[in-house]
Amino acid sequence: MKFVRYGEPGQEKPGVLDADGEIRDLSGLIPDLTGSVLVNLGALFGLDLTVLPKVEGQPRLGPPVGGTGKYLGIGLNYADHAAEAGLAVPPEPVLFMKATSAICGPDDPIIIPRGAEKIDWEVELAVIIGKPAKYVSEQEALSHVAGYAVSNDVTERGFQFDRAGQWTKGKSSDNFGQLGPWLVTPDEIADPQALRLWLTVNGKTMQDGTTATMVYGVAYLIHYLSQIMTLLPGDVISTGTPPGVAMGRTPPPYLKPGDVLELGVEGLGLQRQRVVADGW
Amino acid sequence: MKFVRYGEPGQEKPGVLDADGEIRDLSGLIPDLTGSVLVNLGALFGLDLTVLPKVEGQPRLGPPVGGTGKYLGIGLNYADHAAEAGLAVPPEPVLFMKATSAICGPDDPIIIPRGAEKIDWEVELAVIIGKPAKYVSEQEALSHVAGYAVSNDVTERGFQFDRAGQWTKGKSSDNFGQLGPWLVTPDEIADPQALRLWLTVNGKTMQDGTTATMVYGVAYLIHYLSQIMTLLPGDVISTGTPPGVAMGRTPPPYLKPGDVLELGVEGLGLQRQRVVADGW
Repeated sequence: MKFVRYGEPGQEKPGVLDADGEIRDLSGLIPDLTGSVLVNLGALFGLDLTVLPKVEGQPRLGPPVGGTGKYLGIGLNYADHAAEAGLAVPPEPVLFMKATSAICGPDDPIIIPRGAEKIDWEVELAVIIGKPAKYVSEQEALSHVAGYAVSNDVTERGFQFDRAGQWTKGKSSDNFGQLGPWLVTPDEIADPQALRLWLTVNGKTMQDGTTATMVYGVAYLIHYLSQIMTLLPGDVISTGTPPGVAMGRTPPPYLKPGDVLELGVEGLGLQRQRVVADGW
Repeated sequence: MKFVRYGEPGQEKPGVLDADGEIRDLSGLIPDLTGSVLVNLGALFGLDLTVLPKVEGQPRLGPPVGGTGKYLGIGLNYADHAAEAGLAVPPEPVLFMKATSAICGPDDPIIIPRGAEKIDWEVELAVIIGKPAKYVSEQEALSHVAGYAVSNDVTERGFQFDRAGQWTKGKSSDNFGQLGPWLVTPDEIADPQALRLWLTVNGKTMQDGTTATMVYGVAYLIHYLSQIMTLLPGDVISTGTPPGVAMGRTPPPYLKPGDVLELGVEGLGLQRQRVVADGW
């Protein structure tokens, strides 16, 4: 199934795509697509979607999960991306955290914060946790997944590398975490390690990779992270980006107001974003 | 005022200390001490606490704020602590993030995760945000504070430094974020930069400092962080630790099961924790 959250920021309602790709309203059945609901998401499987109200028009989509407690990012998880960043493939997964306040809808603008000059893109496969995971084995890890989504791990490279350490500073500005359009349940994704993912800027392909070349796959990442902390329903793991980011190009074509990005992961839908200066 | 949350983990109720230091139940007035309530905390000022029900017995205390969206940590923010860590005082604040799932009550045990051998302590002044802060000046920054609390920024030094980068890995295990006992409103804290803070292990003083020696003070930190991201009500900033951590001693007396910690910040109450192996 493909779940969505639609409506204005902070007031999204839960929905699901029907066989025609139209949104059906789920707010009569569940309050929202947050962690406590994800634990019981299976209860909605097999539901007759045609009895649910159709959502008219083209509402804004929000992130397909609400109330995320932590947004975990994995760094340098594609060998060829590590090479373009001039960094070695790490001996174990590199973890950083993005602020949950950065999470936004799939088509919400990329906002350039004041003083930022090195805004970069990163198309990624995001994993949304569906039940608590602590000390889980790699074999049982995927049973803790509620679904998958496209993510853009927007990054300010100056904040990340030139501002006194720790990547989180370059990962956490408002609207730096486009997520969605859909939360796609695992039954629709035969193999999370065989998905094409790509990104264009102003129509030009910048990233075109496959999750087959991940250094540490989804199951291993869940296993690994769960040895350090408990993963909770609604948590998001963004699993790293393939080559083709601005930082790896000469000169780096960092984003500027007016640029338009399109990105997707096979089976998980498309995102489309415009870059804007912060009008705050 | 001194606010608390009491009861079993995940089921805490809001309360407030009366003139005798006893807990009065606030659950008839507010649902919980979460961000949306903190915005309007002023509505409770001047309340006649004697009309509220007394809470009997000695309930467990939880963290004095619930639903925290981000737990921001500041590194190397006391010049003499930077020296003991063998690191330079940073030219601007060092930011890392702790998992919100690490947050627990002030007297909850420190749990040693599997494979951990270098568990360290860090008494800190925590700031709890009360209204959204974006691009705020240093002058107006303190008006965004809901209150202050004691925090123990428990850290696994091996996970922090020896496990492929980014401190967040050493900061985020379950029960690595004791917070409380109280959220103390700013009217009771004349100057957040003039508070003694200390920590003992098995009765021996390990840290004994003052927030007067912070490199970047509370107002500057809120200003600084708000240039990068929006701080939201309920967010926690733990402002760094004074000298005296295990890492700075030879040989380092890392914590072991059975150790007992006591720590406090002037005017903000005391924490007491036992160290236990993970029984999971």
